[in-house]
Amino acid sequence: MQQPPEGRYGDAMRHALDIAARGPVTGGNPQVGCVLLDADGTLVAEGWHRGAGTAHAEVDALSRVADARGLTAVVTLEPCNHTGRTGPCSEALIAAGVARVVYAVSDPGENSRGGADRLREAGIEVTGGVLADEVSQFLEVWLTAVRRARPWVTVKWASTLDGRVAAADGSSRWITGTAARQRVHEERAAHDAIAVGSGTVLADDPELTARGEAGELLGRQPLPVVIGERPVPDGAKLRRHPAGLVETGTRDLDRILTDLYSRGVRRVYVEGGPILASAFVAAGLADEFSIYLAPALLGGPKLAIGDLGIPTITEARRLRLLSIESLGDDLHLTARPQED
Amino acid sequence: MQQPPEGRYGDAMRHALDIAARGPVTGGNPQVGCVLLDADGTLVAEGWHRGAGTAHAEVDALSRVADARGLTAVVTLEPCNHTGRTGPCSEALIAAGVARVVYAVSDPGENSRGGADRLREAGIEVTGGVLADEVSQFLEVWLTAVRRARPWVTVKWASTLDGRVAAADGSSRWITGTAARQRVHEERAAHDAIAVGSGTVLADDPELTARGEAGELLGRQPLPVVIGERPVPDGAKLRRHPAGLVETGTRDLDRILTDLYSRGVRRVYVEGGPILASAFVAAGLADEFSIYLAPALLGGPKLAIGDLGIPTITEARRLRLLSIESLGDDLHLTARPQED
Ligand SMILES: NC(=O)c1ccc[n+]([C@@H]2O[C@H](COP(=O)([O-])OP(=O)(O)OC[C@H]3O[C@@H](n4cnc5c(N)ncnc54)[C@H](OP(=O)(O)O)[C@@H]3O)[C@@H](O)[C@H]2O)c1
Ligand SMILES: NC(=O)c1ccc[n+]([C@@H]2O[C@H](COP(=O)([O-])OP(=O)(O)OC[C@H]3O[C@@H](n4cnc5c(N)ncnc54)[C@H](OP(=O)(O)O)[C@@H]3O)[C@@H](O)[C@H]2O)c1
Repeated sequence: MQQPPEGRYGDAMRHALDIAARGPVTGGNPQVGCVLLDADGTLVAEGWHRGAGTAHAEVDALSRVADARGLTAVVTLEPCNHTGRTGPCSEALIAAGVARVVYAVSDPGENSRGGADRLREAGIEVTGGVLADEVSQFLEVWLTAVRRARPWVTVKWASTLDGRVAAADGSSRWITGTAARQRVHEERAAHDAIAVGSGTVLADDPELTARGEAGELLGRQPLPVVIGERPVPDGAKLRRHPAGLVETGTRDLDRILTDLYSRGVRRVYVEGGPILASAFVAAGLADEFSIYLAPALLGGPKLAIGDLGIPTITEARRLRLLSIESLGDDLHLTARPQED
Repeated sequence: MQQPPEGRYGDAMRHALDIAARGPVTGGNPQVGCVLLDADGTLVAEGWHRGAGTAHAEVDALSRVADARGLTAVVTLEPCNHTGRTGPCSEALIAAGVARVVYAVSDPGENSRGGADRLREAGIEVTGGVLADEVSQFLEVWLTAVRRARPWVTVKWASTLDGRVAAADGSSRWITGTAARQRVHEERAAHDAIAVGSGTVLADDPELTARGEAGELLGRQPLPVVIGERPVPDGAKLRRHPAGLVETGTRDLDRILTDLYSRGVRRVYVEGGPILASAFVAAGLADEFSIYLAPALLGGPKLAIGDLGIPTITEARRLRLLSIESLGDDLHLTARPQED
């Protein structure tokens, strides 16, 4: 019988990928799935990672069998070799006595990589690269963050069709409608942190929580980060944010991102204002754009994007549109920088 | 047998509407279709208007029968009562001896209205309002222009997602791709006139012709109109435009539109630049928007829309999106002011 292009573990890996998606997108750890197969290739257990502080996928799967000796573990990411809040998965697999480990993509993490080598040293048969393209795409944001040791940055703004975020007097409630505003709350909940400039905090005193349609707090709250030299005022609403508060005290975006990464932040949602958004774009630090366009015109000086230091048209920041969606009367576009 | 809601002439009127659409959208006259029915309701001839200087739909249909006596004429617009380059259709129908005239919408034109009354005076049975909603919608642009005695104004611009039309140094070739640029040529050909500000003429020396994909002139060329006090330079390409050239010598948009209307212009395509586009929007003279958005960011001072004199958010110009289309990498939106 001919083997599928992914080899004999392709189906098991696809299943591991499916269950990986049950875990949360946020948090320092990636979404990982693991299935355990017996010698006949029959699935005997499955596991996935449910978020920071919970078992990794391999350990979760191992916990569901009485005896793992001789089994094959099929896992979407190279087992970690790193002692975090849980022990290294490589050691857990060795201790459990599995015969073979099949994984899709290598772990690029400085502290966590090397699991495959450790397993091989222990005499376990190890195969990497099964369904690697699909899994890499699924984990793209996390892999990119870990490779660069800085969070993935989504820059969001909501403007009129002529690129304004507010009228001349600064008023901006509401440029977009309820469906768009609700989507923003969902996007907040899908990021580890929300960053705003000190100007926005001083002007708007925002809450920066992820809320549902009735205004209730969603289960997951992103960490609010205020970027700039000026401090957050004592009475600011942000001081009562359920996830805490980071005040950077600096405008140095590289340093800020490195610091956020070390706190476990893998995805940052930059919500403005215009000065901060422009600074991220100008520095080439925007990995993704989430742009809400309201069918309206305002004119005047309050621009979503100010200056980007682009002198001439050939240096325009070209984007690749990922999606276009109507949300109520508004449009929601997502885009990424075009690779050259 | 039950009659359709449009009465016994609904089917014939729908056919008249279908053939009306074969005529050109441009020109001083509307797209009109006419069918002639015998006493049994059988179609014996059809006609439509093919553009300025050619026969009106009724006369075209009458020319296709040897004897029109006793026939019913079903026509999308009230027959005109006005001697233009062709005689009044009311007189032609009377002379031909038709027994009955059925039409959809009344002619609002100051010089052309009154055909129905004239026909009735001559003893012809006249019924108006058949399929009136559909035909009104089909003729909306023309009817609006004639009611107001000024052309319908489409304001077009092409910008980046942050609302810029050029980089800081003024360079703008090419913000949008070939598919979007080709659509602009098609839109030019669907308007009677293209208006630009004197600033654009002095900066770009544009041709303002409607061209095909190979650069060839399309059959129909809009009249170029340069708005502003400064004259068009002697050597400007516009001086060789196949449709002639109108220099307004004034910034008074109301006066300019009234003048263009009297020249037979029913649709004007305002192609910028930013000062002129903003002036049309600020004056409430934009009936439709054609906005091309390139997936790129530029920042800087070259805005598609400058100031609109809008002090606060509640006075934003709200639009209603009519269409969103991908053209190559670009987006094309059409919109109209939201009615309150
Ligand atoms: N429609 C929307 O999507 C949206 C979203 C957010 C805000 N807004 C509006 O935007 C307005 C505030 O905008 P804004 O642009 O003044 O404020 P901002 O971008 O929130 O904050 C600007 C400040 O951030 C600090 N900063 C941090 N990193 C910086 C860097 N790399 N470069 C330069 N400055 C940096 C500077 O203050 P320090 O002196 O403290 O360093 C700077 O003055 C508010 O009115 C708000 O309503 C709209
Ligand atoms: N991407 C695009 O869609 C697009 C399209 C066109 C142009 N552009 C760019 O736009 C630039 C030119 O822009 P612009 O804004 O300077 O030129 P503009 O809008 O073409 O012309 C401005 C001039 O028009 C006259 N004018 C006529 N009616 C007016 C009114 N009601 N109010 C005020 N002024 C009126 C004034 O000149 P007088 O003193 O003569 O009265 C004014 O200086 C060029 O670089 C061109 O490349 C881009």
